[in-house]
Amino acid sequence: MTDLKPTRADKFTFGLWTVGWPAADPFGTATRAPVDVVESVHRLAEMGAYGVTFHDDDVIPFGSDTAARDAHIKRFRAAIDETGLVVPMVTTNLFTHPVFKEGGLTANDREVRRYAMRKVMRNMDLAAELGAQTYVLWGGREGAEVDMAKDLIAALDRYAEAIDTLAAYSEARGYGLRFALEPKPNEPRGDIFLPTIGHALGFIAKLEHSHLVGLNPETGHEQMANLNFTHGIAEALWAGKLFHIDLNGQHGPKFDQDLVFGHGDLLQAFSTVDLLENGGVDGAPAYDGPRHFDYKPLRTEDMDGVWRSAAANIRTYLLLKERAAAFRADPEVQEALAAARVPELRQSTLGAGESFEDLLADRSAFEDFDAEAVAKRGAGVVRVDQLMIEHLLGAR
Amino acid sequence: MTDLKPTRADKFTFGLWTVGWPAADPFGTATRAPVDVVESVHRLAEMGAYGVTFHDDDVIPFGSDTAARDAHIKRFRAAIDETGLVVPMVTTNLFTHPVFKEGGLTANDREVRRYAMRKVMRNMDLAAELGAQTYVLWGGREGAEVDMAKDLIAALDRYAEAIDTLAAYSEARGYGLRFALEPKPNEPRGDIFLPTIGHALGFIAKLEHSHLVGLNPETGHEQMANLNFTHGIAEALWAGKLFHIDLNGQHGPKFDQDLVFGHGDLLQAFSTVDLLENGGVDGAPAYDGPRHFDYKPLRTEDMDGVWRSAAANIRTYLLLKERAAAFRADPEVQEALAAARVPELRQSTLGAGESFEDLLADRSAFEDFDAEAVAKRGAGVVRVDQLMIEHLLGAR
Amino acid sequence: MTDLKPTRADKFTFGLWTVGWPAADPFGTATRAPVDVVESVHRLAEMGAYGVTFHDDDVIPFGSDTAARDAHIKRFRAAIDETGLVVPMVTTNLFTHPVFKEGGLTANDREVRRYAMRKVMRNMDLAAELGAQTYVLWGGREGAEVDMAKDLIAALDRYAEAIDTLAAYSEARGYGLRFALEPKPNEPRGDIFLPTIGHALGFIAKLEHSHLVGLNPETGHEQMANLNFTHGIAEALWAGKLFHIDLNGQHGPKFDQDLVFGHGDLLQAFSTVDLLENGGVDGAPAYDGPRHFDYKPLRTEDMDGVWRSAAANIRTYLLLKERAAAFRADPEVQEALAAARVPELRQSTLGAGESFEDLLADRSAFEDFDAEAVAKRGAGVVRVDQLMIEHLLGAR
Amino acid sequence: MTDLKPTRADKFTFGLWTVGWPAADPFGTATRAPVDVVESVHRLAEMGAYGVTFHDDDVIPFGSDTAARDAHIKRFRAAIDETGLVVPMVTTNLFTHPVFKEGGLTANDREVRRYAMRKVMRNMDLAAELGAQTYVLWGGREGAEVDMAKDLIAALDRYAEAIDTLAAYSEARGYGLRFALEPKPNEPRGDIFLPTIGHALGFIAKLEHSHLVGLNPETGHEQMANLNFTHGIAEALWAGKLFHIDLNGQHGPKFDQDLVFGHGDLLQAFSTVDLLENGGVDGAPAYDGPRHFDYKPLRTEDMDGVWRSAAANIRTYLLLKERAAAFRADPEVQEALAAARVPELRQSTLGAGESFEDLLADRSAFEDFDAEAVAKRGAGVVRVDQLMIEHLLGAR
Repeated sequence: MTDLKPTRADKFTFGLWTVGWPAADPFGTATRAPVDVVESVHRLAEMGAYGVTFHDDDVIPFGSDTAARDAHIKRFRAAIDETGLVVPMVTTNLFTHPVFKEGGLTANDREVRRYAMRKVMRNMDLAAELGAQTYVLWGGREGAEVDMAKDLIAALDRYAEAIDTLAAYSEARGYGLRFALEPKPNEPRGDIFLPTIGHALGFIAKLEHSHLVGLNPETGHEQMANLNFTHGIAEALWAGKLFHIDLNGQHGPKFDQDLVFGHGDLLQAFSTVDLLENGGVDGAPAYDGPRHFDYKPLRTEDMDGVWRSAAANIRTYLLLKERAAAFRADPEVQEALAAARVPELRQSTLGAGESFEDLLADRSAFEDFDAEAVAKRGAGVVRVDQLMIEHLLGAR
Repeated sequence: MTDLKPTRADKFTFGLWTVGWPAADPFGTATRAPVDVVESVHRLAEMGAYGVTFHDDDVIPFGSDTAARDAHIKRFRAAIDETGLVVPMVTTNLFTHPVFKEGGLTANDREVRRYAMRKVMRNMDLAAELGAQTYVLWGGREGAEVDMAKDLIAALDRYAEAIDTLAAYSEARGYGLRFALEPKPNEPRGDIFLPTIGHALGFIAKLEHSHLVGLNPETGHEQMANLNFTHGIAEALWAGKLFHIDLNGQHGPKFDQDLVFGHGDLLQAFSTVDLLENGGVDGAPAYDGPRHFDYKPLRTEDMDGVWRSAAANIRTYLLLKERAAAFRADPEVQEALAAARVPELRQSTLGAGESFEDLLADRSAFEDFDAEAVAKRGAGVVRVDQLMIEHLLGAR
Repeated sequence: MTDLKPTRADKFTFGLWTVGWPAADPFGTATRAPVDVVESVHRLAEMGAYGVTFHDDDVIPFGSDTAARDAHIKRFRAAIDETGLVVPMVTTNLFTHPVFKEGGLTANDREVRRYAMRKVMRNMDLAAELGAQTYVLWGGREGAEVDMAKDLIAALDRYAEAIDTLAAYSEARGYGLRFALEPKPNEPRGDIFLPTIGHALGFIAKLEHSHLVGLNPETGHEQMANLNFTHGIAEALWAGKLFHIDLNGQHGPKFDQDLVFGHGDLLQAFSTVDLLENGGVDGAPAYDGPRHFDYKPLRTEDMDGVWRSAAANIRTYLLLKERAAAFRADPEVQEALAAARVPELRQSTLGAGESFEDLLADRSAFEDFDAEAVAKRGAGVVRVDQLMIEHLLGAR
Repeated sequence: MTDLKPTRADKFTFGLWTVGWPAADPFGTATRAPVDVVESVHRLAEMGAYGVTFHDDDVIPFGSDTAARDAHIKRFRAAIDETGLVVPMVTTNLFTHPVFKEGGLTANDREVRRYAMRKVMRNMDLAAELGAQTYVLWGGREGAEVDMAKDLIAALDRYAEAIDTLAAYSEARGYGLRFALEPKPNEPRGDIFLPTIGHALGFIAKLEHSHLVGLNPETGHEQMANLNFTHGIAEALWAGKLFHIDLNGQHGPKFDQDLVFGHGDLLQAFSTVDLLENGGVDGAPAYDGPRHFDYKPLRTEDMDGVWRSAAANIRTYLLLKERAAAFRADPEVQEALAAARVPELRQSTLGAGESFEDLLADRSAFEDFDAEAVAKRGAGVVRVDQLMIEHLLGAR
């Protein structure tokens, strides 16, 4: 059995709500008791995690008064300090309480929007205090079921107003937070605003504080729209906006499964790990932030299954990382990639200093270009494909 | 029977490839003879169309020499002149010929990329000559089936290089073209780059000539990812990027059906028309460009069916427009929208001149906010929903 | 405004769990207080409903002792008697309680299976007592997330054993119940057994008591697999197995939305109503059972929205029924259907008394058949299509 | 590198249309020249294949006269004889020619239906002559785009009439063929009749010759509806109807990709192989027919890629088979399966000779059953899940 131990350098982190999920679903009540966050911190630390993340309400029950809030924070900080875990990311729960049923930052009801803003700001204070660098915003209730009951353009105005105000607040207070929007196409709303990585990128580009705002893409969320997650994070990386990442598993367009990473579309999990670990300049990692698992232990499981599934995320990631490294190091793979002209795509289409006038003057590019002959060249994709499968299966 | 006549002001346009599609599909050969573009121009003009659009190869067969090319263009221009139709948009075919099998502007093979650039530039010259304002780029072959056989980040670099070069060319030549990217998630490639409206918006924002580049979203393309098309174009409008639009029908995530507009998700077609026609300032149209139908007459049909289906696009649009106007004018609808606080979303969350410090100081926004009480307010969505259905069905 | 009043002959029925849903979802707690079933019965009766249906736990809370159980039943019966509503269908909750987390009738754990059987039998006694004719079984927990953790063939053996035993029980007790299986592809399990109408039909055919077992298809459940619901119920009708029906709305492959009937895929809702109302012999109804609405009032709504949404189901059905009748009565539609040879499909392919030998001897069928000429005939589908849209929109 | 050689006992077969596909798609013309079937037979034999299969038109071009037909058959037989390959399955092309545009066996046009019947019968004669045991019917054109333009119930009548007539013909001629229906949800038609394994099973059960009719399920076709293929073939096996199988790859609900087996949903490919190879009594194979690959070599490839991709199907299957055997043999897996009570599902729910009266009398099953205590038992699914991943990745 392959021996792979996680280290802090791997930066594996977990949301406290993952192992702590009591496993109620739309058709069933909870199958597990709530888990004390202090226990979760200790168990995850033993497992080799680097850090934990949370929504305000995960650590401090909704509606706690100041004294209760402080007591909850104190216990949590003690656990963090004892284990040496970090808190690289914090987020706000703007979806569980009925007050947010028609939206938070984009609710038709302005009072709700103002309350939502305040709830985020309050938890940003805590995030900064705990040393978090990233503040995630998943707008689970920002959306609609009925197109005509929402002013769709105004909703984006309000969304932008909110993010810009929060960014300005962070700047004014010197919190140094970067904001990461988490896209999702639907569930719990029929249609959620900013449904994919792309929609969020397009939105961010129009913000006043766009330099402070990036993405927290989640594997399963893109796959709920049957989109390729690896392609999605490639665009986020290209735009300099992969601020954080949520890794998990999903079996295509259905309810949000939040399976263990790799336990959905395994081929895509492989290319995701390869991109993160080997997709940067000269094969360096393309991303150096936390590898954050946002999954739900199956409702069928007791606590033994909960901890096993947490460990399964780490183990599967490390196995895929090892196989991706072997794939990249294999001389036959390198030859196959060269034959498929994969590295040639890094060459610009115009030569150094070449203008479009030069291109127009180059008869080899058009007038003398033999389209029929070039069309006969095989692209060599199949060979790369099978080498990928062989490495993934540990057969080379 | 409701009498609705299209006028030039409606700006209905058709791609010549739509009525001209000979109806071959992946499992069957052509069921119809090719249609002469001159006939199509005349038939569409009689039907009340405002203009036509085309790919280079629709009017000038691939590989035509200069003399043949000129002859094809001359005949086409004569038809345009006779009918008074305009050519508001032109595009390039970078997908049919086998030379583009592994991509056009993002092919691994640099020679192919250079050829693709030249093919676009050549047709831009014609577009400008014909007075087109918009140049569409659908990157049907820009994508991959195997993640490892493509450098995904380099592909976006090359895509951006291409678009920026083309935009620079248009500027230098004084063509005044605006470019509209057309997203699609898949088909013919397993995964296409810029798969949704959002991904294209995110990409455009990073371009050097981003002010010249916008979108040509297609109803069915977004719905192939089960995304809400109306939400998508709302974001494009919000970003000032709805440069053109392709209207058609689709039944969810399956092959690209290109049905008649409205003959797929009819409710969403209704909200699309309402947004286009009534979603601007004070209920004005939110979009004033061509209403372009990009559909395929069913393969089961002869030419009678082809012309009927073309007319069905116009007719269905006009019926939906009429019903949307009635919906907006109905006092009960206005009351229901007000009760659902739909107009309230246009009010900014912070008051005029209010800072976040003021918001923090407003105890009514948080400390004295009664979440439980506010949560009890019904959102009034169901009432709007049923009024929408009643208007759509012509029952009010 | 079209005036349409439901009558008892329309047989509109509602699950008590629909209007009674307190609106908790996977990411949010309840937004409404529980509704007393007695109130629901009265409100639905006033609305024109014909009957109500329920899971055991809707009327009798899980774990009630005999005295409490009797008291709950007594109150419920009184409400039924006062209003004159009928109870045509009853079902069992084998999904909410954690004991069913890994399955009910197909749980790996044999004790759970035996308990599940007893829970169903107990409620069958009540169903018979209340005069129900149909007993529905939705196997929401019969499924798996991990293929290797389930013996898939044994699961079907156990499922069949259970249904056959329950049917034998009904027969032995003289209950006269017919059983209706309700397919669903996923949610809450990753994959549910008998995921579609088809899978259930195939399963039923192998049962010992297959004559007593049919289907309760639900609109949205088929659409979660992007399957055509109208096609599905057509096959159930063809097989003589449409024992009951659940009508609602859904926007394609995503979480189970349970929208108001018609408020998802409106075109398909129209063809569904047309099939039910006009699809039988000589245009008679193809189905004479209850039109049962199994939907969830949006979580955004208060009780006003709940009752409005219940009424919206009825209203939308009646509007579609009226339009379907007009469609069938329209002489132009009849002509278009004839031109499209739709009625010709009722003619058998072999003539009366014709054997395959006769067919082989008929040279006109093959040797002299002019495939090219026949291929040129237009199928006339587009004309029917647009007439359908016009009638649906009330434009003819 | 793992050394795995296919043998005839593996029964790997290929459709001649797979390697022979010239790679035209809906948006592009052919990228490869047609492949001579004689060459394909030889290349596949060298690769270790056991047999080949074909549509009539793959071997004998549509419209060939008798002399040409005989010549084509003669050449093909010679290749078969030289290589020792078998022809276990044959099928008919009822979809390419425009005459079938509105359907074959279920066309509205009765003349087309008669012609389609004759075309099938003629090729059945050849199938029998070549010793085929299985006759596949994929009804690619049996379907509709517009519900109202098809009598859905009559269509199933005609479909059944056709299949029963063909079965009677086979019986009368002593051909000994078994018929295998191949379901597909859509493409090329908007909705295809018998869209899934289940719908076909339900249909077959009503046939007069149902004992002669079973299924030929295809991996990607079920996955186009996001259904679990392994669950589907488990039901087919359970019903005794897995007569043949089409193995390939697909990335969820989109156009029919026909990827190499395993190169889509790899986890599901693993459970498919495990079911086929180890799912029978005492771990024997559950299926002993051909492992038939029905895939398309990527359009990007030249002939080198074509043959590589054919070999990749075999190689991936053998790797998965090896890993499935190791999984089943691993004592820790056996322990984990036992802990998850997987084998317990083979025990009937009622004991040997136990009646439902006995079950009712067993107080331990209900009255004394402690649902709360049993609910606390973990189901042990996660442990099996991760062991599966580890074996698949070759990490144990």
